Amino acid sequence: MVSACILIIGNEVLSGRTKDANLSFLGNELNELGIQVQEARVIPDIEDVIIGTLNEVRTRFDYVFTTGGIGPTHDDITSACVAKAVGRALIRNPEAVGMLETRYQPEDLNDARLRMANTPEGAILIENPISKAPGYQIENIFVLAGVPSIARAMFDNLKPRLKGGAAVLSKTISTNLGEGVIAGPLGAIQTDFPNLDIGSYPYFKDGQLGVSLVCRSTDMEEIDQCCSAIEEMIDSLGGNIIFLS
Amino acid sequence: MVSACILIIGNEVLSGRTKDANLSFLGNELNELGIQVQEARVIPDIEDVIIGTLNEVRTRFDYVFTTGGIGPTHDDITSACVAKAVGRALIRNPEAVGMLETRYQPEDLNDARLRMANTPEGAILIENPISKAPGYQIENIFVLAGVPSIARAMFDNLKPRLKGGAAVLSKTISTNLGEGVIAGPLGAIQTDFPNLDIGSYPYFKDGQLGVSLVCRSTDMEEIDQCCSAIEEMIDSLGGNIIFLS
Repeated sequence: MVSACILIIGNEVLSGRTKDANLSFLGNELNELGIQVQEARVIPDIEDVIIGTLNEVRTRFDYVFTTGGIGPTHDDITSACVAKAVGRALIRNPEAVGMLETRYQPEDLNDARLRMANTPEGAILIENPISKAPGYQIENIFVLAGVPSIARAMFDNLKPRLKGGAAVLSKTISTNLGEGVIAGPLGAIQTDFPNLDIGSYPYFKDGQLGVSLVCRSTDMEEIDQCCSAIEEMIDSLGGNIIFLS
Repeated sequence: MVSACILIIGNEVLSGRTKDANLSFLGNELNELGIQVQEARVIPDIEDVIIGTLNEVRTRFDYVFTTGGIGPTHDDITSACVAKAVGRALIRNPEAVGMLETRYQPEDLNDARLRMANTPEGAILIENPISKAPGYQIENIFVLAGVPSIARAMFDNLKPRLKGGAAVLSKTISTNLGEGVIAGPLGAIQTDFPNLDIGSYPYFKDGQLGVSLVCRSTDMEEIDQCCSAIEEMIDSLGGNIIFLS
């Protein structure tokens, strides 16, 4: 199993001002590559916290992805923190400067914008087709922008560098039965399929309670067998299968 | 300063299947009460991880809020983990059973649904007006549902128990100037107002880059002074003030 941790860096997410949009995107993409996101953290723009968290998670997980804090303003401190965490100098990366020069005229490439070309020594850049200031990889840490469209473009560019395990596949069955009705037999089905993960997610939709049952495994044959068992169970309890994907 | 940590418990958020909707809500609400969310973590439905994380964060922060994992199915293990983390027995809470009895006929109150009445010994319940299965408080941990509408209703009910510090106030100024243009003078303004936190958040809207500058402090007079300095700075650089709240 190949594991990942996502660090969302930014006071604005913790204060509730900004809704994070990167976690679900990265979770889905990494999943498809056979990389399981095992933890995500939202942390503030505080140097000690960023460095401490990076040093904790970069040894615990195969990959670490950070979003946020790589712009030109005073509150963008991610690169300085990553450099300290991995014990490398923060340098003005010439290749990154070259990327900025494709966007900015020399007179507009001021000190603040040049800060976006600072990386830990030895970083491998990740191209940013939208605003040019690159992300980068250093060791097992991938440093991405916080703006979702840029984070996505960067992720597309770094994808070929990632090595996943077997992809986790899934199928979802939704029913109008309540969780409390199916919980007993569903638990028995989970016991029958110990290598497969059955998640039960209740929802409200149009004033109606329902539940989505998600079977996840690397083995589609096993998923199909489990889904058949779930369908039979729902049938026997008189429920509708509202949706099956 | 009164601090909080939010734990979002659930594989479905890590896999990207479900977008969390509780963090921004709780962040905003707690902020208004003068409680600052200093960290949030998304963790999987794995007993050791939940217990370990709870024991780490409950000593580091004044308040801990969990969402998710308190339903009736096999993957709902939050209460058992909270009980182990605080070293208390997991009991069938008679008051919680009474709440479930207001919703379910005796013949429908099966073993699975009764699991939703399990709490650590000594828990103080949090009413759930929507589906009746309560949340609860144990020590400084508040255990809430994952379904956003229920989490919100529970939060409304527990609010009077929370003691915050001075509320953090904010004002936002948006401009069409790029971050790289304002970064230098903005950093100087931040230096002039060391007790105030200026966040710079770039955005794309209708194909146009812009930036929102958020001034946060417990002192509205200081915020107003800082905003005046920012407005003057934007003016002097020829930018528009697109939005001011």
